[in-house]
Amino acid sequence: MGSPIEDLLAVLPGDRVRTDPAVLAAHCRDEADLCDAGTPLAVVRPRSTAEVAAVVRVAAAHRVPVVPQGARTGLTGAANAVDGALVVSLTGLNRILELDAGERIAVVQPGVVNAQLRWAAAEAGLAYPPDPGSWESSTIGGNVSTDAGGMCCVKYGVTREYVLGLEVVLADGEILRCGRRTVKGVAGYDLTGLFAGSEGTLGIITEITVRLRPAPGETRTVVAVYPAMAAAGRAVAAIVAAGHVPSMLELLDRTHLRAIEAYRPMGLDTSAAAMLLAATDTGTGTELAAIAECCRQAGASELYVAEDAVEAEALTSARRLAHPAMEHLARQAFPGGRGGLVVDDVAVPRARVADLVDGVEEISARHGVLVGVVGHAGDGNLHPVIVVDRADESSVDRGRLVFDEIMRLGLALGGTCTGEHGVGLLKKDWLAREIGPVGTKVHRALKTALDPDGIFNPGKVIALP
Amino acid sequence: MGSPIEDLLAVLPGDRVRTDPAVLAAHCRDEADLCDAGTPLAVVRPRSTAEVAAVVRVAAAHRVPVVPQGARTGLTGAANAVDGALVVSLTGLNRILELDAGERIAVVQPGVVNAQLRWAAAEAGLAYPPDPGSWESSTIGGNVSTDAGGMCCVKYGVTREYVLGLEVVLADGEILRCGRRTVKGVAGYDLTGLFAGSEGTLGIITEITVRLRPAPGETRTVVAVYPAMAAAGRAVAAIVAAGHVPSMLELLDRTHLRAIEAYRPMGLDTSAAAMLLAATDTGTGTELAAIAECCRQAGASELYVAEDAVEAEALTSARRLAHPAMEHLARQAFPGGRGGLVVDDVAVPRARVADLVDGVEEISARHGVLVGVVGHAGDGNLHPVIVVDRADESSVDRGRLVFDEIMRLGLALGGTCTGEHGVGLLKKDWLAREIGPVGTKVHRALKTALDPDGIFNPGKVIALP
Repeated sequence: MGSPIEDLLAVLPGDRVRTDPAVLAAHCRDEADLCDAGTPLAVVRPRSTAEVAAVVRVAAAHRVPVVPQGARTGLTGAANAVDGALVVSLTGLNRILELDAGERIAVVQPGVVNAQLRWAAAEAGLAYPPDPGSWESSTIGGNVSTDAGGMCCVKYGVTREYVLGLEVVLADGEILRCGRRTVKGVAGYDLTGLFAGSEGTLGIITEITVRLRPAPGETRTVVAVYPAMAAAGRAVAAIVAAGHVPSMLELLDRTHLRAIEAYRPMGLDTSAAAMLLAATDTGTGTELAAIAECCRQAGASELYVAEDAVEAEALTSARRLAHPAMEHLARQAFPGGRGGLVVDDVAVPRARVADLVDGVEEISARHGVLVGVVGHAGDGNLHPVIVVDRADESSVDRGRLVFDEIMRLGLALGGTCTGEHGVGLLKKDWLAREIGPVGTKVHRALKTALDPDGIFNPGKVIALP
Repeated sequence: MGSPIEDLLAVLPGDRVRTDPAVLAAHCRDEADLCDAGTPLAVVRPRSTAEVAAVVRVAAAHRVPVVPQGARTGLTGAANAVDGALVVSLTGLNRILELDAGERIAVVQPGVVNAQLRWAAAEAGLAYPPDPGSWESSTIGGNVSTDAGGMCCVKYGVTREYVLGLEVVLADGEILRCGRRTVKGVAGYDLTGLFAGSEGTLGIITEITVRLRPAPGETRTVVAVYPAMAAAGRAVAAIVAAGHVPSMLELLDRTHLRAIEAYRPMGLDTSAAAMLLAATDTGTGTELAAIAECCRQAGASELYVAEDAVEAEALTSARRLAHPAMEHLARQAFPGGRGGLVVDDVAVPRARVADLVDGVEEISARHGVLVGVVGHAGDGNLHPVIVVDRADESSVDRGRLVFDEIMRLGLALGGTCTGEHGVGLLKKDWLAREIGPVGTKVHRALKTALDPDGIFNPGKVIALP
């Protein structure tokens, strides 16, 4: 046994074992602000399952931590390096191995970009629904590891619901294949569901079998503008109560409307308190008309129904600009690269959406910290976006206070600390509060059972004793 | 510490700690034929989570096995007693604790009967889709523990997809609450999914939070009769390929048609090779008409479209009679209680359904054992039903050979050894073959992590070393 690097060079070519400081620096963090990131020992780029297994065996032999990475678009620090770790970049495993239109399944490597799978499915007349905001750049491996969501979830659910089977490299370098290729199957423990969403703490996912859906009908969209947040909340409640199943039901608050209009003027009503965007994809106008009526009756000051898919896409683009617009706002508010955004992610019972938004507003005002709220009102999953001045310690401290108060409020409303972004580093303490000591004990038991030496993504998700 | 019974009597009233032989005998097995069943030490009937926890603590202190039971309608021996075990009957925990129509969730105790939840949901204008054949008598706890399926799965999926959260009594008597009440949530490992489908080997489920759906539209049904199984297979493939999403797509073979007609004459064509039943519940006739056209083009010799829900239900009743009709057939073939049925459960890729049926027919003929095939063609999940003479050792042996050959065929076709019934005792060896040594090792590691002394349902699901 040589040094870890020597042993890695025995299993991977030199150009795929990188130790140059620029490469290490480029791979030390994901897109979460305010999360710690260490300096890795090396960044390795395996191109096959066998190479991943070989790398893990080297890491296991040396008890060196292993941090799997995809496109590093995560928002919780789950992919951040820890000191002395091997960062295993899976972006080189980027092939769609199979797409079987008859069975409606695809088998992909973890480095396949969400958009790449989405397009391949569409070409086969099918759909891969999960659509995290990062869909144009994030990888399926990362999506599965964080159990990513998106705007589709209100109708189609999160990533885990599309994962039928996995291949996973375990902590001893052995290769597990779990799950199935059939539509249906209940054989044994749900290992697939356990590894999905485990954020790289239990193994490295090297192959994913996903289920696809028939392509939906044409998307139709309605936009409703409200003078008060409570009215938008009533519209959401009415849509749900009537049993409608929109394919999208998004909420933007005034801060976001103003940020978007400042970033890309499109005639948004910046005096409004909230805007709802709802869509259907059944291909008929009936359900959308009924949803629009719910929006109107709840007190919309303005209502606009898109006549076709092109108009629908134009309306949705305002929603898609929410994140870049808030980044722009942060840059304007705190120039010189000081502006930071903490994108929170909390899911509450649908009936409490308006309470959450009101509470966030109160917290924001009390601490003098700008917080915009955007998100998936239809499933109660909102993203309060906290704007901080990274160069000002007191601004960062107040940002953290606001973050914690929002988390506390979310749990008090019967919610969860993460609807779709995962735990990572950002929410480790809040996960522990949410699941309590027994839940934490069970998490630790499972982690220890599958990764006894704790080499996989240490310090993420669960606080070990 | 006294004897186990003395200690149980300290935590439960005497009438809920039963040791009389008749009660023990009545609780020693589920509905699976040809599975071993032991004699329990006692049958206990807790009425609260605290009482379940107290019972588990007694069992843990004495290292006495614990076998949880619901309605004992399972088909794999998962609920069979083992010698000296405490059978914990959960049927006394039978309350619907909450049904929140706005959030579309229900919180129920494990002893709630599937039909009870179904009716409560319907009264609130909602639906609880999972519909195992035993829905009128099986409990939600049992449904969750086995991850039960049903006819709805082709559109709505298996039980696990409806379980949002659980309360579970762990092996040390501690009470875990996992999952969520929100539509969306990805906090931590998917413990809910892990306990669901674990067949009582990891803990005792004492409370279940399920998601409900908006009530579907009126059901419309089409029946198609085929002179050859391959034609029925083509119809299924065409329906799937066209992107239709039937709410039911069931197949009955000639053996079942004849058994049903003999049991309850209803004018079925007993010369046909197969019958398909398809339904839609979108409330419009459009999709059903398109499905009927697929059925016709595949070569149906007869096609019948139900005009309304009453007619649709009449057509479906033939399918519902499949199991009692085969029991009747077994009683007729082997009088005096000798007739036994082994209900197999195998799921294959949808395109291989006809291959599976053909293969079963060949196996049946070669061994001279009657096997009927019925099941959920739309998701590739079929039930070959093997008829044996329990009093004739050679008949039973041939039945086992047929069972094993069908399992082998299912795996060879890319399938899984269980689509919806679970593993229990019946398929322990086949699970091991399906998941291989690494999968088995991971199962054992998880079992040991959560139940180090192996008190929960020992000998079920996984073969321990």
